[in-house]
Order: sequence, then C-alpha cells, then structure tokens
Amino acid sequence: MTSRTDYPRCAAIFGASGGIGAAMCEALAARGVERIYAGSRSGNGPAGAAVTPFAFDLADEPSIAAAAEMMASSPPDLVIAATGILTLPDGTGPERTYRKLDPAAMQQVLLLNTIGPAMIAKHMLPLFSRDERAVFAALSARVGSIGDNRMGGWHSYRASKAALNMLLKNFAIELARTHKLAVVAGLHPGTVDTALSEPFQGNVPDQQLFTPQHSAERLLGVLDGLEPKDSGGVFDWAGARVPD
Amino acid sequence: MTSRTDYPRCAAIFGASGGIGAAMCEALAARGVERIYAGSRSGNGPAGAAVTPFAFDLADEPSIAAAAEMMASSPPDLVIAATGILTLPDGTGPERTYRKLDPAAMQQVLLLNTIGPAMIAKHMLPLFSRDERAVFAALSARVGSIGDNRMGGWHSYRASKAALNMLLKNFAIELARTHKLAVVAGLHPGTVDTALSEPFQGNVPDQQLFTPQHSAERLLGVLDGLEPKDSGGVFDWAGARVPD
Ligand SMILES: NC(=O)c1ccc[n+]([C@@H]2O[C@H](COP(=O)([O-])OP(=O)(O)OC[C@H]3O[C@@H](n4cnc5c(N)ncnc54)[C@H](OP(=O)(O)O)[C@@H]3O)[C@@H](O)[C@H]2O)c1
Ligand SMILES: NC(=O)c1ccc[n+]([C@@H]2O[C@H](COP(=O)([O-])OP(=O)(O)OC[C@H]3O[C@@H](n4cnc5c(N)ncnc54)[C@H](OP(=O)(O)O)[C@@H]3O)[C@@H](O)[C@H]2O)c1
Repeated sequence: MTSRTDYPRCAAIFGASGGIGAAMCEALAARGVERIYAGSRSGNGPAGAAVTPFAFDLADEPSIAAAAEMMASSPPDLVIAATGILTLPDGTGPERTYRKLDPAAMQQVLLLNTIGPAMIAKHMLPLFSRDERAVFAALSARVGSIGDNRMGGWHSYRASKAALNMLLKNFAIELARTHKLAVVAGLHPGTVDTALSEPFQGNVPDQQLFTPQHSAERLLGVLDGLEPKDSGGVFDWAGARVPD
Repeated sequence: MTSRTDYPRCAAIFGASGGIGAAMCEALAARGVERIYAGSRSGNGPAGAAVTPFAFDLADEPSIAAAAEMMASSPPDLVIAATGILTLPDGTGPERTYRKLDPAAMQQVLLLNTIGPAMIAKHMLPLFSRDERAVFAALSARVGSIGDNRMGGWHSYRASKAALNMLLKNFAIELARTHKLAVVAGLHPGTVDTALSEPFQGNVPDQQLFTPQHSAERLLGVLDGLEPKDSGGVFDWAGARVPD
C-alpha cells in the first residue's frame, strides 16, 4: 500500500454518517489529515479536532452548493461520495425480478445513487487545484459492472451504479483537459458490515464480510496508488480494476 | 443478412412515431409481418392493413400495462422500444460539461430513456412464449458504452443509456432461466437523420448520416441474426458488439 505523506492535506467525506464513510473519516484523522469536512443529513459529524461537520442532502442541490461554498477558502484535495442506498427508506428491498420494477422506486434509487453523486461532483470539482494532486471518488459497487453481471436482479441498484460509473468516466475525461494531476474513480468496497448490506449478509461467509474499518483502510490505500492514467475507472478494495 | 421467413409473425413497436420506429414499422410491413402493433403518444399509427395503432406514454406505466393487455390475446414475438430523447422538450440540449448538470433534467432523461423502456419490458416480457423465438430490443446508443467513451459530455444521455444497457443485461439473464429461445438486446442505429439527431448533424459527414429506412433495415437484419447466446448485449447496425 503506497502512502503519500503530503497527501491528502484536506478531505471532504459526503456520507460521514454511513458505515464506510464514518470509517474513512476515522482513518483519515488517524493519518493526521489536517482537516476533514464530514457531511451527513443531520450535520452531526464524528468527534475530532480535525473534523468540520456539515449538513447536506443528496436530493437537495442547494445544500451541496452551500457545502462547497463553505469549503471554498480551504478546499479539499480529496473528495469522497460515500453515500448510497440499496433498500428504500420505506423498507422496499432491491428488485429480484423485472416484474417488480416500479417507476417511483427506480427514480428514488437513481436520484440518490446517480444524480446525488453527480451534484457533489458538480459543486466540488471546481474547487480542485489545476496543478496539484486532487482525487474525486464515489462509492460504486461491483454489481454496477455490466461485464461482471452473471446473476441479474437488483435492477435499480445495478442500473444506478452503471450510470454512476459512466458519469465518473465522463468527469475524468472532462477534468483531464485542465487538471493534469486529477484522478476520478469509482470504488467497490467489498461486502462490508453496514446498515446497507445488513439484510443481505446471510449468504456471505464470515471471512468475506469486511469491517468498515478494514474496507476504509484498503480503499484509502487504493486511492493513494491511483495515478491520472487510472482516472475514470472503478477499482475494488484490493486495487483491481472492475470491468465496465 | 439472414432472413427468417417465419419470424417475426407479430411485432410491437413502441415509438412508432419516431424516425427509426416509423421506418421499422414500414420495413416490417414490407416483409409481410402479419400484425404490427404501433405505439405512440398520440395513438395515431402509420397506415397499413397489418397495423394496429395504440397510445402509450413512457412516463405513464398504466398506459403501457393497458397496451400489453390489449396485445395479450395475440402477443408479439418481437418487441422494440424505439423511443428516446436527447434534447429535452423545453429545448435544453445535452450537457457539455458537469457544470451544467441539473437534477430535474437528469431525472427527466433517466425517466424516458431508462425507466420507460424498463416499464415496456416489465409488461411485455410476460407475453413471450417459453418455447418459441422471441426478441426484446431497445434502442440504446454507442455513447452509452463506458468502454467506448473517449469524448465525455452528454452526461445524462450517456448515463441513461449505460443504465438501460445494464437493465437489458439483467432482463436477458432473468429471461434465460425460463425462455431458452428468447433474446434481449440493445441496438445502436448509427447516426440517423431524425428529429433527435437533427441539432447535432453539423459534424457528421453526409455518407455517415443514415436514412431512417437504411438504419431500420440494418437493425432488423441484425436482430434476425441474434441467437440466445447473444442475449444481453448491445449491437450496432452492422451487427458488431458495442463494448460495455
Ligand atoms: N456495504 C456494502 O457491502 C457495500 C457493497 C458495495 C457497495 N457499497 C456502497 O458503499 C456506499 C456506502 O454504503 P454503506 O455500506 O456505508 O451504507 P450506509 O452505512 O447505509 O451509509 C449510507 C450513507 O448514505 C447516506 N445517505 C443516504 N441517503 C442520503 C441522502 N438523501 N442525503 C445524504 N446522504 C444520504 C447516509 O446518510 P444518513 O445517515 O443521513 O442516512 C449514510 O451516510 C454506498 O454507495 C453503497 O452502495 C456498499
Ligand atoms: N438518431 C440517431 O442518430 C440516434 C443515434 C443513436 C441512438 N439513437 C436512439 O434511437 C432511438 C430513437 O431515436 P430517433 O432518432 O428515432 O428519435 P425521434 O425521431 O426523436 O423519435 C423518438 C421517439 O420517442 C418517442 N417518445 C419520446 N418521449 C416519449 C414519451 N414520453 N412517451 C412515449 N414516447 C415518447 C417519440 O414519440 P412522440 O412522437 O410521441 O414524441 C418518438 O416516437 C432513441 O432511443 C435514440 O436515443 C438515435
């Protein structure tokens, strides 16, 4: 695992209340990152001298714009969208068959998993310096890979992550025109013991279920190792490229 | 170009008022297909003894359910979702930069290009026979390929087609469990002279701009040649597989 001593100086985690997002904040604080903007819907960030909590909602663009404005005078060089949903707030689980597809449920999943991270990128990418390393990452998922799809199911979730992966590729291409050192990446965290995966852990062997701490450490290590030539790809916790 | 004399017997074209959809209806009628269900928002189908017009709206699931019910007694063995948008009804063009991303516009594009075809699949796939050839195709686009993306831009449109391609893969996997002869495919029609492409034809050399008739003929020929092993893929007008 490469470790860059001077990077990141300042990080912004959107979804700092989530299993993986909270563990990323902790890991960054333990590394001695100077400042960590920690965003959640409640605005109650994790404790820590380096932590600046903020409130945002994926479905409320002005809240994301306001967060970016708040950070503008001391902008992050690492931004992670660690948000996401699988089960809807009303308890509806991911669809196991096309017969259960529901337009409102699909819209909700696409709003949170695709459009939300796009809004974070829209407002945060303009804060990146053109001549220093800067990384934008979003939590995607292996099941968002079309090439890797053997099982089917989880229609809206899979579609939302495939769409997210396309947007990340687009952001990488656009940013590369002006920001030669920037990296944009999707991340697959493994199967991680969080609220999101909880209803689906039954078939996961114990040794394949990661703690959020383990996943966060591995993902930050993977981000450390990414170069501008890798920009636009999706990478798993072990650093392997996930197929398109 | 393979031609199957006994197939299709009966086709349903959603988007029969579109450039490509209308040309597909014509081509199918010219082939002597017994019955062609031709769907559009107005419900005014093209003329022809074999044509049964019907009305539907991509954003109105009950209208799609009603269309499927109307066809149930004499179901199609070929269903094509030939719908889609690039420019929004209010004239807003596809985004050229992430700075122009708008959540409402993204939702609109995803609703029409991803969720709409999913609703067509939801209600039409259950009409397919388990022991006869049946094909479900949706008009996708080469720019919906993540692997093929070199230029970026057109964020919502690209994302909506990548998400559609994922759903098509999912439908193929699910259908293969019960329908051994079924094929699900995405189609790239080439750059075709229609209302959709009209604002963007400036940079397209004349000989690369297809008439809708040419594209429709090629695409129907490609569908003729697809086998169950091809199901879940995206294919261009020449029959070449488009990368994920
Ligand atoms: N866990 C896994 O096994 C696994 C596997 C593959 C991929 N992933 C991906 O990893 C990411 C993180 O998942 P996790 O496992 O850490 O899940 P989690 O513990 O459920 O965390 C989800 C996070 O998303 C936030 N969020 C949800 N809706 C929001 C909204 N409207 N506005 C703002 N924030 C919102 C939550 O904030 P609130 O506290 O405000 O609800 C929370 O911070 C997701 O993208 C997921 O798809 C996870
Ligand atoms: N033309 C190209 O160069 C090109 C290239 C790549 C991919 N494609 C894809 O090919 C497909 C067909 O495009 P086209 O070029 O034939 O475009 P088009 O002439 O503009 O046709 C679009 C069709 O979509 C229908 N539609 C739009 N909104 C609808 C709604 N809410 N409910 C029901 N139907 C709706 C339209 O019906 P109304 O008449 O009711 O509006 C029309 O039938 C699209 O998916 C497009 O992305 C085209």
